[in-house]
Amino acid sequence: MTRGDSLQLLIQQVNDFAEARDWRQFHSPKNLSMALTVEAAELLEIFQWVESQDSLVLSDAQRTASAHEAADILLYLLRFCEMTQIDLLAAAREKLQLNAQKYPLELSKGVASR
Amino acid sequence: MTRGDSLQLLIQQVNDFAEARDWRQFHSPKNLSMALTVEAAELLEIFQWVESQDSLVLSDAQRTASAHEAADILLYLLRFCEMTQIDLLAAAREKLQLNAQKYPLELSKGVASR
Amino acid sequence: MTRGDSLQLLIQQVNDFAEARDWRQFHSPKNLSMALTVEAAELLEIFQWVESQDSLVLSDAQRTASAHEAADILLYLLRFCEMTQIDLLAAAREKLQLNAQKYPLELSKGVASR
Amino acid sequence: MTRGDSLQLLIQQVNDFAEARDWRQFHSPKNLSMALTVEAAELLEIFQWVESQDSLVLSDAQRTASAHEAADILLYLLRFCEMTQIDLLAAAREKLQLNAQKYPLELSKGVASR
Repeated sequence: MTRGDSLQLLIQQVNDFAEARDWRQFHSPKNLSMALTVEAAELLEIFQWVESQDSLVLSDAQRTASAHEAADILLYLLRFCEMTQIDLLAAAREKLQLNAQKYPLELSKGVASR
Repeated sequence: MTRGDSLQLLIQQVNDFAEARDWRQFHSPKNLSMALTVEAAELLEIFQWVESQDSLVLSDAQRTASAHEAADILLYLLRFCEMTQIDLLAAAREKLQLNAQKYPLELSKGVASR
Repeated sequence: MTRGDSLQLLIQQVNDFAEARDWRQFHSPKNLSMALTVEAAELLEIFQWVESQDSLVLSDAQRTASAHEAADILLYLLRFCEMTQIDLLAAAREKLQLNAQKYPLELSKGVASR
Repeated sequence: MTRGDSLQLLIQQVNDFAEARDWRQFHSPKNLSMALTVEAAELLEIFQWVESQDSLVLSDAQRTASAHEAADILLYLLRFCEMTQIDLLAAAREKLQLNAQKYPLELSKGVASR
């Protein structure tokens, strides 16, 4: 299996992990949206008292913690997409195209979104 | 380019999108952790008054909105990992292994995590 | 001091607590909005795998944890309002009036908001 | 009724508002913890691309938006406490005392919490 197949493999592993533990009963889209937000806020917590500029250079502890939280977010996101039958990569590609229309280059250069 | 290369390609597109708009100045890990949480909460909002059981079957509007929010979460997550130089897939594989130790099969079957 | 003065007294205590620790330097509105969201997500975490109906009757542990998180949310909210000079009760009264217009009785009865 | 009674009055108004619309059916602690987090993230969104220092001086639009989101957070927090029978002010006073033990003056001066 090549490096390129990594995401598909991970999706399968996430689902196997949950099913082996009989966790489908807990994994409604509603509950998963909660779990995902909880993990996002744990990432947020790492940076709550850190200034923007300082967050550009992470300590080892911050990097490790960030990697774990980023991982948790992805794992719940993949499980959410499994339970809702959403093709995450296709959705992301489509959203990026919508964003390109919403934020045309000439109007968005150096101006924060929204 | 084969289907398996999709994530790598998406990562490149996300970065090109941000750099073309000169958005690196806004994309500190701190700010991105905020944007990511905002998107997670927009996914949460879709389900706030929906019962767990009912969230298993989405209306077309709920599915489209969910796909867009899931996409936004992934896009910011990829950008966060770019700015922190975290290998997201490697982190997720590692976290899944840690979770396997934290939630051994015989103790976790049918019991919600945490 | 009568019971009715409790909120004013609490506001003063929250501010004294922060100032005595020289925490004003951390308490920008941006940072406080992050801390507040982190606490909200900790409340969310208590209920992530609990069904709606079951959340109506809390265990002692859930009640204690909920009280602590609700308290943390209020404490950061009061501090946010101090740093932005927002009169929280006045804002809440005004918002309740706006909500009354947005959700007129005859259209909103038994229909979830938004 | 004196100014000091404002919070008690607001609590009654929040409950009357919800009951008149027959919204108790939606207001499980689980669902309210979601709604509260959604509102917290809407406050967060206001500041996601604003630097800490710049968030200390709000534009009129930012101030108005912040006041509305702060209000929404309080309204859902009060409703959460009603549905869980938590005395919010008592919980906040207790938490502030716990925090005083957790962050003793001599160790916490000028050092961010956590």
